[in-house]
Amino acid sequence: MKKRILTGDRPTGKLHLGHYVGSLKSRVQLQHEYETFIMVADVQALTDNYDDSEKISNNILEVVMDNLAVGVDPGISTVFIQSQIPQIAELTVFFMNLVKHSEVLRNPTVKTEIKQKNFKGGTPFGFVAYPISQAADIHFLRADLVPAGEDQAPMIELANAIKDRFNKVYKTSVFHDVKGHFSNFSRLVGTDGSAKMSKSLGNTIYLADDEDTVKKKVTSMYTDPNRVRATDPGKVEGNPVFIYHDAFNLNKAEVDDLKARYEVGKVGDVEVKDKLQTAINILLDPIREKRSYYQDHKQEVIDILETGKDKVLDEAEKTMELVREAMKINYF
Amino acid sequence: MKKRILTGDRPTGKLHLGHYVGSLKSRVQLQHEYETFIMVADVQALTDNYDDSEKISNNILEVVMDNLAVGVDPGISTVFIQSQIPQIAELTVFFMNLVKHSEVLRNPTVKTEIKQKNFKGGTPFGFVAYPISQAADIHFLRADLVPAGEDQAPMIELANAIKDRFNKVYKTSVFHDVKGHFSNFSRLVGTDGSAKMSKSLGNTIYLADDEDTVKKKVTSMYTDPNRVRATDPGKVEGNPVFIYHDAFNLNKAEVDDLKARYEVGKVGDVEVKDKLQTAINILLDPIREKRSYYQDHKQEVIDILETGKDKVLDEAEKTMELVREAMKINYF
Repeated sequence: MKKRILTGDRPTGKLHLGHYVGSLKSRVQLQHEYETFIMVADVQALTDNYDDSEKISNNILEVVMDNLAVGVDPGISTVFIQSQIPQIAELTVFFMNLVKHSEVLRNPTVKTEIKQKNFKGGTPFGFVAYPISQAADIHFLRADLVPAGEDQAPMIELANAIKDRFNKVYKTSVFHDVKGHFSNFSRLVGTDGSAKMSKSLGNTIYLADDEDTVKKKVTSMYTDPNRVRATDPGKVEGNPVFIYHDAFNLNKAEVDDLKARYEVGKVGDVEVKDKLQTAINILLDPIREKRSYYQDHKQEVIDILETGKDKVLDEAEKTMELVREAMKINYF
Repeated sequence: MKKRILTGDRPTGKLHLGHYVGSLKSRVQLQHEYETFIMVADVQALTDNYDDSEKISNNILEVVMDNLAVGVDPGISTVFIQSQIPQIAELTVFFMNLVKHSEVLRNPTVKTEIKQKNFKGGTPFGFVAYPISQAADIHFLRADLVPAGEDQAPMIELANAIKDRFNKVYKTSVFHDVKGHFSNFSRLVGTDGSAKMSKSLGNTIYLADDEDTVKKKVTSMYTDPNRVRATDPGKVEGNPVFIYHDAFNLNKAEVDDLKARYEVGKVGDVEVKDKLQTAINILLDPIREKRSYYQDHKQEVIDILETGKDKVLDEAEKTMELVREAMKINYF
């Protein structure tokens, strides 16, 4: 039997090149090797967007279309919406008993994210609880592998601790170990050179951007700030345009040539950027084409989600039957 | 339309006289005036008994039989098991976003109970979350009235705060105000004179106790510790046997006579206790009879719970449809 992957996206905006290199590209490859479940994590997105749920509803189909456009094959992968699976909430409530309150607050990922979010008026209880919800996301499907950034390692550790405790307390083997599949390209710099491409920073190139938009965004990208003229020697390492060339330009010889000339002041930013926008547009062309197909056939996207829901509800109910049996709460 | 009551019991043991005066008696009266829902709170009981779930499964039917025995009428009241309603967990997860983490920790009831429970190795996250779950219990049924002890007032305040926030954030009126129905007899002293009748203290008289057991338990009850001989004047106030006479002896003239004689040293403990056990047995006789009927017809009890589940699932789904609509997560 194939091992299972659970992966997914928060539907808070269209997906961009950062998502592409960070997770979409590998999920498309892995779907042939693993039984793949892709969750549109709306419940999780609500923990820090509860007062802007329209943003979430507006982005459900966008995110699914992005997945289909990059090559997620609905014939082999299952796409579903988190809020349509009540068993995840049920399992979250049961898992909450197996984790100490202090343990969640000590979790490095939780600590970092609470600090980053810096919620006005205090952290919502649901945000503090989200590593436990995430363990429920993973275990209700009995997933074996979860693609994630390295910073999520403590979350996966907690999911495994919850599994150990559940199996021990309820004398069962219903849940099994989950491994993180850590991307070596977990974070793409933004077009402005800041550490992370992110909608809120306005430094993104979306998978859905048209050719001209990509061109404009690449033209205004940050490069080596110390290089004033095209004849100045430039720095390649850490330079956003070259990070992007490495990530997206399939013509490696061209990239090597540009790098060599850049380092000795023999190429201008204009040429480097022009070749970059061409490369990105070559990558995005078939994605845009597929995306535009689904844009015109939204009912197909909805059907994919309906099929996914039915399949996942079946799986969820299978798990919950074992859970209730182990917990002895399947009363009659 | 009749207003709604949500009430219920934690299935951690058979119900006793403390439950009778604290809530069962009034729920039997109120069921004619209110649409009554009685929840067997197994999910809540798991928050501090997660590692002893067999205790819970062993007591589900016991608790329901106790309710039926005291006069809960399954023809007009609805009895259901909390864990069979997944919508409560779903609503709990959504409500968790509307409460600040610090706010729960500041709640006086939560603070007191965490102190009382003094969990080994730390408080389970689920126990900290339980006021939020309780708000979901109340609101998923859109209950108007919740019978409770005075110490639960901060919980009901929190449930109303969550309602206000939900309605405001999601521009809806799906949830409405809930009021506490505070019993004036919320706590019955134990047979040993300690503040509360409680299984864990071993100072209970169960509704299911037979005549002899009641007799034995009453005979060994604490009275006025300063009274050595029957001819010594005794204290009535705060004296467990007289608290019980007041609560259970329907013959008020007899109680007044006993009190008067006790205060001047004209009656022995034996007579006071003998009349008390007689009174309690008069109260319990029809309850025992009814209980024994259901003991022999367990399938009827199960059928009552199945009917309750179906009715409550319908109600829950109605609420969740409005919730999803308000939250704009009813996507297509």
